[in-house]
Amino acid sequence: MENLFKHKTEIKVQFEDIDAFKVVNNCKYFNFFERARIDYIRTAGTVNNGEDSIENYECAVVENYCSYKKPAVFDDDLTILIRMSFVKRTSLQFQYIIKRYRDNAVIATGYSNLVWVSLKEKKTKVFPPALKKAVIDFEADSLGTMTGMPDLR
Amino acid sequence: MENLFKHKTEIKVQFEDIDAFKVVNNCKYFNFFERARIDYIRTAGTVNNGEDSIENYECAVVENYCSYKKPAVFDDDLTILIRMSFVKRTSLQFQYIIKRYRDNAVIATGYSNLVWVSLKEKKTKVFPPALKKAVIDFEADSLGTMTGMPDLR
Amino acid sequence: MENLFKHKTEIKVQFEDIDAFKVVNNCKYFNFFERARIDYIRTAGTVNNGEDSIENYECAVVENYCSYKKPAVFDDDLTILIRMSFVKRTSLQFQYIIKRYRDNAVIATGYSNLVWVSLKEKKTKVFPPALKKAVIDFEADSLGTMTGMPDLR
Amino acid sequence: MENLFKHKTEIKVQFEDIDAFKVVNNCKYFNFFERARIDYIRTAGTVNNGEDSIENYECAVVENYCSYKKPAVFDDDLTILIRMSFVKRTSLQFQYIIKRYRDNAVIATGYSNLVWVSLKEKKTKVFPPALKKAVIDFEADSLGTMTGMPDLR
Repeated sequence: MENLFKHKTEIKVQFEDIDAFKVVNNCKYFNFFERARIDYIRTAGTVNNGEDSIENYECAVVENYCSYKKPAVFDDDLTILIRMSFVKRTSLQFQYIIKRYRDNAVIATGYSNLVWVSLKEKKTKVFPPALKKAVIDFEADSLGTMTGMPDLR
Repeated sequence: MENLFKHKTEIKVQFEDIDAFKVVNNCKYFNFFERARIDYIRTAGTVNNGEDSIENYECAVVENYCSYKKPAVFDDDLTILIRMSFVKRTSLQFQYIIKRYRDNAVIATGYSNLVWVSLKEKKTKVFPPALKKAVIDFEADSLGTMTGMPDLR
Repeated sequence: MENLFKHKTEIKVQFEDIDAFKVVNNCKYFNFFERARIDYIRTAGTVNNGEDSIENYECAVVENYCSYKKPAVFDDDLTILIRMSFVKRTSLQFQYIIKRYRDNAVIATGYSNLVWVSLKEKKTKVFPPALKKAVIDFEADSLGTMTGMPDLR
Repeated sequence: MENLFKHKTEIKVQFEDIDAFKVVNNCKYFNFFERARIDYIRTAGTVNNGEDSIENYECAVVENYCSYKKPAVFDDDLTILIRMSFVKRTSLQFQYIIKRYRDNAVIATGYSNLVWVSLKEKKTKVFPPALKKAVIDFEADSLGTMTGMPDLR
């Protein structure tokens, strides 16, 4: 299944990521997902970097889900595998698998459903065509082939 | 449905909760859930306050889910409604509804599945009996009556 | 000295505020300072609440300092005492004393120097006159009477 | 002056680092300092990596100071230059310069005073001799040569 995930974001667990129980706090995984999404859009969407590129992330998360498999700890090197599993007119879905380098363990899996929005007009908008084309090209044949939610849980 | 939620935690949206799009960041809702869980255990579980009470939260989140309904903004007064929807030998589930004071809007719903753990021994442990009894008394007849996941989404 | 501080913000230490060493993380104190500043402007500056009020905080922190006296822990009730110690044409200074309710201990002291800015034009601007007048009225005779930096350290 | 700083930590500004004004929030710089300190100890102190290495950071920040020169924005590549400016029996000082890659601008400067502590016994302890030796070797002739606080402001 992992070979469906064509994009990777590397993260080192920082002191600020762990909580009083010395494991990565459950809330932090959603920050990791967010970083992976932004990194994905930058790469797969071939958007420019820099301050202005923030416009490319004008989306609203509609649903967020994480299944925690093993605790990650301080100094762990994690890889966030990410794929876009479907893209429609205004909405899309990202799926994630977080793996740990030192033991190749799956740490967590999850998904996010998003809609593209115009923050100025406070309403949904069409997913930018150029971005959509770039993403479809990047995902190629794997897009839409796996609904896979049950497995990811 | 809301009358099944017997516990409330009040939160004011701080500047640090909002992101560059001037709405409460999607990840922050899981912090709000966490605060509500701790507040719930303190009240429903009738545990003592203070530094030592942290022992009462030695649990691991196994699943986390949030459905975002409306964006919350700076200075919003939110109420996190929380209930324990089931409690088993080592695991339990919390459900949440986040409402906004000024317009009574539902901002988000969600749930968390947890297992009780011994962090020293790194394994699951039985949910503390005294805490369990207190919680069952608190929830009374509503415990286990609503699986309700589909509705919460 | 504390009687010079006319404004107070109450904060309960949350699980997310403490780090792996089970004390409030050193960085969090600056979030507490920020919350106190915003709360101060809201009260002393008699500005309206709500999403739009964020315009009233268009300032840039130029310097930030904190001296840590005692560690705060989970569940501690803290009071952030705050005063504006001077206000000039475009700049001003806040001073803070953080005290703990249960033992009346001073947990930390600090200060922030700020300049008012127009974020759109990316330059400093005059501190809004109405806000300035309200603040001066609030601070009354104590404004500018204490430079006190050495003492606060 | 920068050549006195022998250690560097690279940081990319993440979406979670910027606030509603689309600049890196003032509080985040102290997280950047913290990351740089940990990275410094790991490298200069030649300590082992991994979960257990957290013991090597059992210190308490006594003072924290940051002077903000220019706002950093989303996607900026920052370098945290860090040096240990003095080390005594139980205390030591780190100094920082944060530079931005794209324009070589100084974004912020600062320092932290720390004492080494035993968290179990809740008291200060001697800075570990092996760590101290490694650090002194790393800093070599620059240690103690610059008090430099005024310049850093």
